Amino acid sequence: MSPKMSAAPLRVTVWSEGRHEQQDAQVARLYPQGIHGAVAEGVRLNLGDEVRVRTATLDEPEHGLTEEVLADTDVLTWWGHIAHHEVSDEVVDRVHRHVMAGMGLIVLHSGHWSKIFTRLMGTTCTLRWRAERDRELVWTVDPAHPIAAGVPHPIVIDEQEMYGEFFDIPAPDELVFISSFSGGEVFRSGCTFRRGHGRIFYFSPGDQDYPVYHHPDVRRVIANAVTWAAPAAERRTPRLVHSETSWFEGEGVRS
Amino acid sequence: MSPKMSAAPLRVTVWSEGRHEQQDAQVARLYPQGIHGAVAEGVRLNLGDEVRVRTATLDEPEHGLTEEVLADTDVLTWWGHIAHHEVSDEVVDRVHRHVMAGMGLIVLHSGHWSKIFTRLMGTTCTLRWRAERDRELVWTVDPAHPIAAGVPHPIVIDEQEMYGEFFDIPAPDELVFISSFSGGEVFRSGCTFRRGHGRIFYFSPGDQDYPVYHHPDVRRVIANAVTWAAPAAERRTPRLVHSETSWFEGEGVRS
Amino acid sequence: MSPKMSAAPLRVTVWSEGRHEQQDAQVARLYPQGIHGAVAEGVRLNLGDEVRVRTATLDEPEHGLTEEVLADTDVLTWWGHIAHHEVSDEVVDRVHRHVMAGMGLIVLHSGHWSKIFTRLMGTTCTLRWRAERDRELVWTVDPAHPIAAGVPHPIVIDEQEMYGEFFDIPAPDELVFISSFSGGEVFRSGCTFRRGHGRIFYFSPGDQDYPVYHHPDVRRVIANAVTWAAPAAERRTPRLVHSETSWFEGEGVRS
Amino acid sequence: MSPKMSAAPLRVTVWSEGRHEQQDAQVARLYPQGIHGAVAEGVRLNLGDEVRVRTATLDEPEHGLTEEVLADTDVLTWWGHIAHHEVSDEVVDRVHRHVMAGMGLIVLHSGHWSKIFTRLMGTTCTLRWRAERDRELVWTVDPAHPIAAGVPHPIVIDEQEMYGEFFDIPAPDELVFISSFSGGEVFRSGCTFRRGHGRIFYFSPGDQDYPVYHHPDVRRVIANAVTWAAPAAERRTPRLVHSETSWFEGEGVRS
Repeated sequence: MSPKMSAAPLRVTVWSEGRHEQQDAQVARLYPQGIHGAVAEGVRLNLGDEVRVRTATLDEPEHGLTEEVLADTDVLTWWGHIAHHEVSDEVVDRVHRHVMAGMGLIVLHSGHWSKIFTRLMGTTCTLRWRAERDRELVWTVDPAHPIAAGVPHPIVIDEQEMYGEFFDIPAPDELVFISSFSGGEVFRSGCTFRRGHGRIFYFSPGDQDYPVYHHPDVRRVIANAVTWAAPAAERRTPRLVHSETSWFEGEGVRS
Repeated sequence: MSPKMSAAPLRVTVWSEGRHEQQDAQVARLYPQGIHGAVAEGVRLNLGDEVRVRTATLDEPEHGLTEEVLADTDVLTWWGHIAHHEVSDEVVDRVHRHVMAGMGLIVLHSGHWSKIFTRLMGTTCTLRWRAERDRELVWTVDPAHPIAAGVPHPIVIDEQEMYGEFFDIPAPDELVFISSFSGGEVFRSGCTFRRGHGRIFYFSPGDQDYPVYHHPDVRRVIANAVTWAAPAAERRTPRLVHSETSWFEGEGVRS
Repeated sequence: MSPKMSAAPLRVTVWSEGRHEQQDAQVARLYPQGIHGAVAEGVRLNLGDEVRVRTATLDEPEHGLTEEVLADTDVLTWWGHIAHHEVSDEVVDRVHRHVMAGMGLIVLHSGHWSKIFTRLMGTTCTLRWRAERDRELVWTVDPAHPIAAGVPHPIVIDEQEMYGEFFDIPAPDELVFISSFSGGEVFRSGCTFRRGHGRIFYFSPGDQDYPVYHHPDVRRVIANAVTWAAPAAERRTPRLVHSETSWFEGEGVRS
Repeated sequence: MSPKMSAAPLRVTVWSEGRHEQQDAQVARLYPQGIHGAVAEGVRLNLGDEVRVRTATLDEPEHGLTEEVLADTDVLTWWGHIAHHEVSDEVVDRVHRHVMAGMGLIVLHSGHWSKIFTRLMGTTCTLRWRAERDRELVWTVDPAHPIAAGVPHPIVIDEQEMYGEFFDIPAPDELVFISSFSGGEVFRSGCTFRRGHGRIFYFSPGDQDYPVYHHPDVRRVIANAVTWAAPAAERRTPRLVHSETSWFEGEGVRS
């Protein structure tokens, strides 16, 4: 039975760095519960009883991402910006291992340059940017995709940091959204990737200096992505398998 | 609210040509309720209350696929073989229109050469074949895909018609299964495609001369595909849109 | 030996409808040699001795696309707009057959709604549009792609018709360019598709009312696409193959 | 002018570990010039004056892959097996950086578990295997791809190590070949990936214990891949770009 079909709620962990909120009064005003708090609230409001949401941040022991927490997480969301380098390699290894085994991962905005995202992508994940209050329009280019369900075309975000191409990522498995900005730039703002047994969604809207994570359509996209990224099967790590001829004809065929 | 999340069951229409069963006693013995009957049974057994399944066949008026039936169908499954040319162009146009608007479509086995599939693909959909009781092994190459949930790796089908490459289809959006046959041939046996707002899954196992649609793993895949192909949003036909500058800033942004 | 590596020049046929130029003095001024003339000139200027270019138009017998012409064509470029319906189904069938067998096809701008393109795509190929002299910026999102070689990032087109999403095409095999417009719309403006043995490139810039086909960067892209779309092997039509067990061990293995 | 079109030959560096040949007399008999020697010979025989080929191995200073060598390399081929862990991280970083900037990379057989490949993929790159002299059949599933030009369908390799699914890689950008083995296993044996500005081809046939790199069709594929992977533009590293509004309207637009 897949987790999606079971009665048990999806277990979601919303992670963010949590530093801007401590250091910058303006960010603290926009996100009094932290960016993680705003993201978590959006997931809860959209998915209700279908999810059980907790939050974790950089300054907790092991960044709040112990083996126990990850083993108890179906989908992890990730926001970081100024302290990517402070995330310990051990925790990055652990998150990577869980993604390989099937944990879903939603990477938000400046998380494009996090250790975990660049490791999963294998590229530089660099991009073009400008912080000048551009208007961002988020257009759906895959209207059959469940992540795009229920959002306007386009989503209008009145003020945003600009993220533009060339965004150095592998070609996404599915391109769901493309954004434009006041300055004329474009960005592949909603992209899916599968790595190992895990499903990954990168979504670029959102910044510490704008109230983007309070935007109802942005919240809806993140909630849709949580549902989409939930594993469809038991967690299992890909591994090297030595295989005898016709091994599959025995009892072990399902394992 | 997406149909997937609602309490209402998915509306599934299982279509097959229904001719071999009338003309060939051996096929009638294998499929006493018709191929459509066996496929429908497999969907019901796997999905229970989550679906409401009906069947339709070529010899019914309008092949059982009236505008009313299609408007009341979330996912259509299609099996045909010796009578593709008898399917009326009008019904093919109608099915195509509903796929464009978001109806899911599961095309099975020899349906690769149906009018509706070749029209959606734009290619010849030709392949290599042999009816010599090959063993087919169906290997999962996308274990994170919900269509592959819960099936062994590989699925073992003891006797099957061989379908081999080159299969002249567009590169699938997602390749879920690859099969091998006793003779050494390979085949992209589980492929997803999105066309318009509709999600399409092609699955090659299954033939009138072998009891493949009674195979529990084959049935599980078809049931998984039904769930996957269900539309995530209201049905809506893509259309040419003339657009004023900044039209999206008005009230109409969600329509 | 592939045609690309041979000393013989690529055989290019540039097709356009040729009607606006006859009916509208402004178009005739912009394109005194016809749109086909401007496209052909751009290919010749960029590729020189590597190509042998001819043109053909709707009003010629068989639209200038006889069996002999197509058999002598490595890559066909296509522009049409107000007379798609006048293209005979017989010629569309013929072009389709040659694409299946390996002929390259470059579809330009309003060719998105031509019979040949919609048949190859299997979708409605509808889009959003506006003719209000928007500025178009064409951004490269696949800088490793040979079609993007040598063009600025972005290409700036001062005045253009707007083409916007949702563009109802299958997900392209490769997305090379994304455009933005003054109004904030985005468009997947450079897309590759493989169908049968043929390689297809859709490129949206270009309109009868603007001098886009005189733009050096637009011409460079079309020339790059001609080189990319040239068949790598002898032309051969995909076909249904009945195959004996171990047929491939015999002499015929290469055929 | 792209390097592909220029008169200058492609600069190819063929790298292999070079250890089995020193340690195992049977391997030394199969590959008296080393595996790198056999691969290099195949590239030279197929491409002649179009290439300038050099070799490098693990035991050379900096593994023969100095900054100077890589800066003078258009395409690097990679074979390793028992000493992946001996490749220095510094050299892996260097190769990675050059791939990001546009250097082509061909990864062969057991190179699937090399540091450079797993880093570029972001996954475990694990697979199923067996060394029991299976026959491998390599089927073309993308006959329009230049890497498949001129090879039989299937390529027959009489004796080979078995590599089977699940192969834990990202979904390839293009799937060119699928192999089957005597035991019934299948493998995505020819896969393209773009990472940064670089083009990557993974090709699984080839092993130290079988004379696979003397097989003319295997050599043809590797040579085709070298041509395909050659950069189409000047080498350039993706980087974070801070961008003023309308920066692209100035002189710098091409840089």
